[in-house]
Amino acid sequence: MKKIVFDVMNNDNGIYDAIKGAIAFKIKNPEYKIALVGNKEIIEAELSKNNPTINKDSFTIIDSKNIIHLSSSPRDALKNPSSMLDAFNYLIENDYDAILSSGDSGAFTTLSMLKIKRLNNVERIAFMPILPTLIGKHTLLLDAGANIETSAEYLNNWAILATYYHKLIFNSNIKPSIGLLNIGTEEYKGSPLNKEAYKILRENQHINFYGFIEPKDAIEGKIDIILADGQSGNIFLKTLESSFLGFGKMLKDIIHTNIVTKFGGLLLKKQLKKMKSNFDYRNVGGAYIIGLDKVVVKAHGGSDEIAFEGALNQIKNLLDKETFIDDLKKELDNINYVSIE
Amino acid sequence: MKKIVFDVMNNDNGIYDAIKGAIAFKIKNPEYKIALVGNKEIIEAELSKNNPTINKDSFTIIDSKNIIHLSSSPRDALKNPSSMLDAFNYLIENDYDAILSSGDSGAFTTLSMLKIKRLNNVERIAFMPILPTLIGKHTLLLDAGANIETSAEYLNNWAILATYYHKLIFNSNIKPSIGLLNIGTEEYKGSPLNKEAYKILRENQHINFYGFIEPKDAIEGKIDIILADGQSGNIFLKTLESSFLGFGKMLKDIIHTNIVTKFGGLLLKKQLKKMKSNFDYRNVGGAYIIGLDKVVVKAHGGSDEIAFEGALNQIKNLLDKETFIDDLKKELDNINYVSIE
Repeated sequence: MKKIVFDVMNNDNGIYDAIKGAIAFKIKNPEYKIALVGNKEIIEAELSKNNPTINKDSFTIIDSKNIIHLSSSPRDALKNPSSMLDAFNYLIENDYDAILSSGDSGAFTTLSMLKIKRLNNVERIAFMPILPTLIGKHTLLLDAGANIETSAEYLNNWAILATYYHKLIFNSNIKPSIGLLNIGTEEYKGSPLNKEAYKILRENQHINFYGFIEPKDAIEGKIDIILADGQSGNIFLKTLESSFLGFGKMLKDIIHTNIVTKFGGLLLKKQLKKMKSNFDYRNVGGAYIIGLDKVVVKAHGGSDEIAFEGALNQIKNLLDKETFIDDLKKELDNINYVSIE
Repeated sequence: MKKIVFDVMNNDNGIYDAIKGAIAFKIKNPEYKIALVGNKEIIEAELSKNNPTINKDSFTIIDSKNIIHLSSSPRDALKNPSSMLDAFNYLIENDYDAILSSGDSGAFTTLSMLKIKRLNNVERIAFMPILPTLIGKHTLLLDAGANIETSAEYLNNWAILATYYHKLIFNSNIKPSIGLLNIGTEEYKGSPLNKEAYKILRENQHINFYGFIEPKDAIEGKIDIILADGQSGNIFLKTLESSFLGFGKMLKDIIHTNIVTKFGGLLLKKQLKKMKSNFDYRNVGGAYIIGLDKVVVKAHGGSDEIAFEGALNQIKNLLDKETFIDDLKKELDNINYVSIE
């Protein structure tokens, strides 16, 4: 039986959507054991009223009422009581398979790194969100900010991990193409780090290396995996998110200008909704933290019931591949033997 | 008399728009001496047919027919003949005040750095575009990619330069607020470079330091100057540009879906045009290369006549302040004395 720990606190919209998402998932996947970490009274009240097949014994409940402070420093995240910290401790102590939270990315990444065993031959973990593109297809971005400093070896490591994850996440048989995010596409451009990584990645026979890419290529979906140092990946991700949110807001304001524009907006409604849905994080999914011996997923901070159920399904998608962690370990053993000469 | 060298080649749309922009500017500013560097026959033909007050003697014409290759390496830019290289040589040999080109940013930055004297106490030049924001106001971003490696001292240097330029560019009397682009706004977050720069910038009495910012703050116009290392600034700029272009394209496709959506688009046309115009580089302006003893402006690669005339006006705006370079030099002398302890 597969086991998931779910920190139901720390969500921008409160605790209820998380519990409802867990219930919706559990009804369809009764064979999954799920531990809910959060305010016990609220959880039990919510479980008792919803569904004939669900009651408070359907889940393991770990009472934990403190939410993690948004700007917790790494030290605070480890020291101060929080449902997120309790969830990690429960994961390790009870040997669960996966953990899910929608809390602060920084704290979640720190706790993942400090609490969960890294896979053999993985030097650093990476934060890996799924991104939409202009052509509809989804790509993986890593590292989006787990690491403050990045080495060429880490990038090579992540390229291998992401190649493996890409196949599992998208149930795909292609060897995904990997672009290294850079200030130009020409081989002579970029930081010493990127130039060094370029040489190593080009020689790596286990991946499909496309070469340097610029943000435009990533947004247009020219490649399957966007590889970046932690700072560049983080700035790329946040600029992309803020631009699209900003554009959406401007468009909304425009439509609300007057009665004529409101009618114009009405005529475009169906198509605009479709476009929005393509970029909606609920349809795109949560971010993975990879390089660890567990499945670790960070749901969006504003997740609703549907987003949480989706994140649980993301986890299930990996856990259902029984030998996935073992296969990944084998892959890593092989590859590091080759790439570190 | 103020003198501008204008490389009219190297534009995505060919040579004509650059010549037309120069003519439009010259008619309104006959006191400016302008040297046009490009295909002499085309320039003369264009000058002879346009306007009664303009003829081939209205400009100095330097015949130079080679455009610079888009992926020129720094070495190639210096070695291979090009109108851009000729423009820089002409600027220096004839002691002109300013240079304008719409050619490749990389080549233009390299040639600026190698050909033009740096100001005293400036360690590195920076590429500084003007950016639109969601609230309409314009901000400055630097460095957007002139430097592959950045030090905390460079960032402090640029903060001083940009504070000075901001006043001149926007004819403003406020002390512009400066945000340092980072992976988080909390003081303990970020690379060693950013943490070191934070401490220095906080102590710098000559600037108005806001603190760390994330892409969201920059896009929302929370600060006046976005300070960044060359790689982060470049990725931020290009992600922003590509996101807005991508969004605009999606919206256009949506409007063209069918007769109903076309009508919807028609009703929104006026407002959409206004929004587009806010983000149109023609209304925003070219990028400056700062830290040099000349005024150096890079126009957008796809500039049309209006954009080129605008870029020439950008140059004029600085050159008309007679003592601007001298004042800047004094500012730098003062400030470096204070900040390098």
